Amino acid sequence: MAVYTSLSQSEVENFISKFNIGSLKSYTGISGGVTNSNFFINTDNCEAVLTVFEELNFDDLDYYFNFMQHLSSHGFSCPSPISDINDNYIHDLKGKPAALISKLSGKVFEEISDKQLIQLAKSFAEMHLISLKFKSRKKNERGLQWMKDTFSMFADKISSDQRELISDELSFLENIPEDLPRGVIHADLFRDNVLFEEDRLGGIIDFYYACDDFFIYDIAIVINDWCIDHNGIIDGKRKKLFIEAYDSVRKINNNEYDALNSYLRLAAMRFLISRFRDQFNAKDAELNTMKDPLFFFEILKNRRQNLN
Amino acid sequence: MAVYTSLSQSEVENFISKFNIGSLKSYTGISGGVTNSNFFINTDNCEAVLTVFEELNFDDLDYYFNFMQHLSSHGFSCPSPISDINDNYIHDLKGKPAALISKLSGKVFEEISDKQLIQLAKSFAEMHLISLKFKSRKKNERGLQWMKDTFSMFADKISSDQRELISDELSFLENIPEDLPRGVIHADLFRDNVLFEEDRLGGIIDFYYACDDFFIYDIAIVINDWCIDHNGIIDGKRKKLFIEAYDSVRKINNNEYDALNSYLRLAAMRFLISRFRDQFNAKDAELNTMKDPLFFFEILKNRRQNLN
Repeated sequence: MAVYTSLSQSEVENFISKFNIGSLKSYTGISGGVTNSNFFINTDNCEAVLTVFEELNFDDLDYYFNFMQHLSSHGFSCPSPISDINDNYIHDLKGKPAALISKLSGKVFEEISDKQLIQLAKSFAEMHLISLKFKSRKKNERGLQWMKDTFSMFADKISSDQRELISDELSFLENIPEDLPRGVIHADLFRDNVLFEEDRLGGIIDFYYACDDFFIYDIAIVINDWCIDHNGIIDGKRKKLFIEAYDSVRKINNNEYDALNSYLRLAAMRFLISRFRDQFNAKDAELNTMKDPLFFFEILKNRRQNLN
Repeated sequence: MAVYTSLSQSEVENFISKFNIGSLKSYTGISGGVTNSNFFINTDNCEAVLTVFEELNFDDLDYYFNFMQHLSSHGFSCPSPISDINDNYIHDLKGKPAALISKLSGKVFEEISDKQLIQLAKSFAEMHLISLKFKSRKKNERGLQWMKDTFSMFADKISSDQRELISDELSFLENIPEDLPRGVIHADLFRDNVLFEEDRLGGIIDFYYACDDFFIYDIAIVINDWCIDHNGIIDGKRKKLFIEAYDSVRKINNNEYDALNSYLRLAAMRFLISRFRDQFNAKDAELNTMKDPLFFFEILKNRRQNLN
């Protein structure tokens, strides 16, 4: 959905004049990104990303920016928030919240090598460990209750087979294990949120779903996108690679292993629901860049059969 | 003087195990740097610099690391300190303080282009502006009193002409203007502390002389190294370029302009004194990498003739 908010050169110049980052040399709108407008900013001495938040409010953003700051101050490769001259991260730009973050090197890869997968797994486990020292708390706004509420808003618009499967699955998900290690999770770590310079991890981006939840749920979200074949079926070899690399940094306990399949199902449901919701809420012009909900239907059906 | 403290692979591994930055892939000792031992560190997902401080103590380092953190959180290109899992920057390594900082891109240039000079000037002015919000205070340990005390320690080892010139100059420097804008200064911004990727500034390093002092003194230190010919004589065109670029970011006031020549003399004296001191304190093996004090004698004599 690319850039929603358009900014003129003088609007960008006016915005960056709040920061001590030099004068503007160039800026470019970034296509990609589903809910925010992003611009690469080039100044005399700095490359940064300007994000205008189309949906998030100031309070939520404080949490996300403090978490990114916490991660980057521990050497984790993610964007660092840039403070203005008054030490604030978040600003008003045309009535919306906006902020500057550092630009990471690397690009998104669609096809992931084994080396890249292993790097991501280790870095991801480190993110979980670093999160244990983060003080703020934020509940997962897209938890099971949100899935149920959202489902009820579009249930009459899908086929009865789809409706029954989702209903049945939502009942199952009410009783999955919960006594599990937790901390801050990324909650949206798809391949398009990780940058690589060839085999080297450039960094993890887009922390705007981060929240307190179970680590195994975050792991499940990653497996559902990173360790599958083109039909959404789990590639056992890649799943093993991923788990072993993650486990070498943060030990996965037996309860987490036992709960993994349930969380793979919960993670599939989460994105199935949000994709259906986006589809039914979309304006016509947006439909061509929409992510297909049916792919996650396949994933969900497959996970229901692969009980561990 | 290159690397003083040598570290084995297991010592480096043990050190970085305190951080969540992945496991060690390689490390290399860095030659260059006069008072610390530096190593490039490569992990699965991070490039960093490990510095072992040969002279500085834990309390001073706290100030420098907080200042670097303050600068980098405002988008300034300098190394960011990396916290360990307990949120500490500074550690004990073989009885010395040691720390990890992020690695900047770029390299040192001996010959500086006009574009590079302009970039450095603007970034340097931004550093001064950002410093105005920094809360900690630290006096300049290498101020005039230090120069006098240090001079008295080697005065009988130099020629009588040299001795008289320094004495005369120290008297002059007692009465130079002091009602001038101040903040945190770098205090050692020679060409070997700035990295460029071709014309683009990679960043400023080595903040281990940073302290509270007059901005015009910091400007004088830079002019004495960046805007001179091979005889140490100021290149008027480059000085003008530098001043104009700096002034476009942070306005230099009339009192500062009037005081510039005095501070060029103070800055020349500062490095003349420290180079003599290093020479008389050096062990034989170090003499070949020592910086020549006599070059700053030439600079000082020249500045005494260029009264503004």
